[in-house]
Amino acid sequence: MFTYEYARPALTTDCVVFGLDDEALKVLLIQRDIPPFEGEWALPGGFVHVGESLEAAARRELKEETALEGFFLEQLHSYGDPDRDPREHVVTVSYFGLVNLIDHPPRAATDARNAGWFGLDDLPSLAFDHQQIVDTALERLRGKLRYQPVGFELLPRLFTLTELQQLYEQVLERTLDKRNFRKKVLSLGILRETDEVQQDVAHRAARLYEFDEAAYEERRQNGFHFEL
Amino acid sequence: MFTYEYARPALTTDCVVFGLDDEALKVLLIQRDIPPFEGEWALPGGFVHVGESLEAAARRELKEETALEGFFLEQLHSYGDPDRDPREHVVTVSYFGLVNLIDHPPRAATDARNAGWFGLDDLPSLAFDHQQIVDTALERLRGKLRYQPVGFELLPRLFTLTELQQLYEQVLERTLDKRNFRKKVLSLGILRETDEVQQDVAHRAARLYEFDEAAYEERRQNGFHFEL
Repeated sequence: MFTYEYARPALTTDCVVFGLDDEALKVLLIQRDIPPFEGEWALPGGFVHVGESLEAAARRELKEETALEGFFLEQLHSYGDPDRDPREHVVTVSYFGLVNLIDHPPRAATDARNAGWFGLDDLPSLAFDHQQIVDTALERLRGKLRYQPVGFELLPRLFTLTELQQLYEQVLERTLDKRNFRKKVLSLGILRETDEVQQDVAHRAARLYEFDEAAYEERRQNGFHFEL
Repeated sequence: MFTYEYARPALTTDCVVFGLDDEALKVLLIQRDIPPFEGEWALPGGFVHVGESLEAAARRELKEETALEGFFLEQLHSYGDPDRDPREHVVTVSYFGLVNLIDHPPRAATDARNAGWFGLDDLPSLAFDHQQIVDTALERLRGKLRYQPVGFELLPRLFTLTELQQLYEQVLERTLDKRNFRKKVLSLGILRETDEVQQDVAHRAARLYEFDEAAYEERRQNGFHFEL
């Protein structure tokens, strides 16, 4: 038991992790194994340990509950409404993550009853204020996609220009003109054309590209602003 | 005394409040009255009470320590490095505020030993990781100023176009072309020209403008993006 002079809110982290497959933009959820909201779906997360940084807590919980490791994760927003948890006053620091589902296929969870990827149009009712956190994360993703090259985190290392365009179309929920998109994205000078082509296609296999992070960093330091 | 089954980090809020005067962009600091860092300068802030929202805690501490009330405040970022406070593991949710120093002149503090506005080029050494929080807030302010009409929060209700330009020049730390700036800002259609002119000037008193929030909201809902 731990005793303090003043009452303290409890502190958790919760993660909105987005992944992309052929069909849709998806978000990683776990099925809660304990009350409150037992059996309901929620964002992966849990209590911050004393002596642990916020990001370390977020990554630990993700690994424990969904076996997911080593991907883009950044802080989103903190939620502290006193009524957001029926047990007591719990403040949560939310994180926003991006993974590519090719390198991180869905796996059985350990600490949670169940874990799974859900299409954004097909989310179950979420525990706590987690729907609000998902909405904020989606807004952040849409904003970042236009002004930072974070979209590549959702793709495998090598991708076709069509896959890149589909990513933008799925996240931004609008159709883009193929010719304009290609011209714009290639003019940024941050894609490297590889010698490889798409596998497993019958004919006209498309060229594979990769994100050239070094080129992006160099351009950025010279005042270049990514915009797509 | 309050007892919990597991140890909990302590939870605080800290605020970076920016104000603008004729000379420079300034930040509001308090002088600490108690250890750690007794006598040193720090951001206004303090412990979050159980049952209190994060923003309510931030506003309460600001009022208690600096007598400041009723101004633009939004969440910035949460810091949770276990070593950021020498006493124990303290997580802080930081906020970012904007006030105009005409309507909110510096006042004597109550809960702090002293409070004052410091030019960003002339900050004292700050307690904890508060310099890092100020740096993050300044980066946020510079980004927001370009894409959201938040700059008006730093000006009195009525202002001249020269004052608006000086605001952008001081925050962005660069000189802007007067003619281009006026043309661009007036073309946004979110300033209302008033019948009033500047007081207390010998001759050629400049026209006063105000931010037309209703016009901005209407334009924004029609897909308009503020950019300056």
